[in-house]
Amino acid sequence: MEHVVWHESLVNMADRHRANKHRSGVIWFTGLSASGKSTIAHHLEKELFDRRIRSYVLDGDNIRHGINSNLDFSREGRRENLRRIAEVSKLFVDSGIVVLAAFISPYRDDRAFVRDIVGTEHFFEVYVNCDLDVCEKRDPKGLYKKARAGIIKNYTGVDAPYEEPESPDINLDTGSLSVEESVEKVLEFLEEKRFILLL
Amino acid sequence: MEHVVWHESLVNMADRHRANKHRSGVIWFTGLSASGKSTIAHHLEKELFDRRIRSYVLDGDNIRHGINSNLDFSREGRRENLRRIAEVSKLFVDSGIVVLAAFISPYRDDRAFVRDIVGTEHFFEVYVNCDLDVCEKRDPKGLYKKARAGIIKNYTGVDAPYEEPESPDINLDTGSLSVEESVEKVLEFLEEKRFILLL
Repeated sequence: MEHVVWHESLVNMADRHRANKHRSGVIWFTGLSASGKSTIAHHLEKELFDRRIRSYVLDGDNIRHGINSNLDFSREGRRENLRRIAEVSKLFVDSGIVVLAAFISPYRDDRAFVRDIVGTEHFFEVYVNCDLDVCEKRDPKGLYKKARAGIIKNYTGVDAPYEEPESPDINLDTGSLSVEESVEKVLEFLEEKRFILLL
Repeated sequence: MEHVVWHESLVNMADRHRANKHRSGVIWFTGLSASGKSTIAHHLEKELFDRRIRSYVLDGDNIRHGINSNLDFSREGRRENLRRIAEVSKLFVDSGIVVLAAFISPYRDDRAFVRDIVGTEHFFEVYVNCDLDVCEKRDPKGLYKKARAGIIKNYTGVDAPYEEPESPDINLDTGSLSVEESVEKVLEFLEEKRFILLL
């Protein structure tokens, strides 16, 4: 092993894209709590899986209970939360997978920060656009209620801002679109971009 | 979308294994610096790729410059380094990928900690077993030299311990085995375990 070049990568991202017959990247779902981000991401994952497109959902469920379990919800904690998600996403993209990332990510700066880490050419922003009153009516975990009662502080949409994307790649009006329609819209976008070749 | 169950996963790890026609897990390469961990991992990745087995190398190159760029080399920093690697590995395993993780990971406790996070049934330990004097002669980055000169402190094998695995799944004597022979030994093990079905 004396003359081996150390740490050489023998398979690169382009090799993986060719083998997989699709590109890899991050579909970033941003929006209020209960707007439908994770639900759409999981349904999209199933549709992609059925088409043999390798994808994987990252959301609060597998991130906050795992790699980011030691972070709080302070401004700094939230920034580090997103930084790690971005770095994990980058590894997945390099491995050839389409990441479906579902996170409130309320600040424009933070989303730009994630985009920078992942690489603009691999990053697509989906605004899961749903009126606050609709989200609040759904309130599946009762968190809006707690936020209104002051039990939870700094809750996005209640006493913390949500900064809408200015030019998202896709705008999903989930107040009126069904899950299936939302998924279809993302699939059409990916096909248009020749990101995936639907088989 | 009112009656949707939130955060439901519609594709699980078993579905991915069936579609991929191989299982997923972590092959953990431990050993001294310059023992050949990353080189073997990268060559194994190429062999697996050619067999259409989805794998991905995690090593210092993509971890320390990315997700763990804000950690130091203190005992605590090293522990957090391994915790994050384990959590990232776990996500990859869930996504159906065979992770090839190449890290010195000198302490038995730390490796057990990683195994616990990943899950014993998904974790295989490969001891990249090479005598210190051979590693030190290779010294591709000149780090042993710096450690001997006292410029680098707490360098594994010089002034910090390396705790050998007591019962590794595979023991690779990389002082005598070539890279190809080492890779072959891992492939045979994975085949034996019916972990991968070599096509």
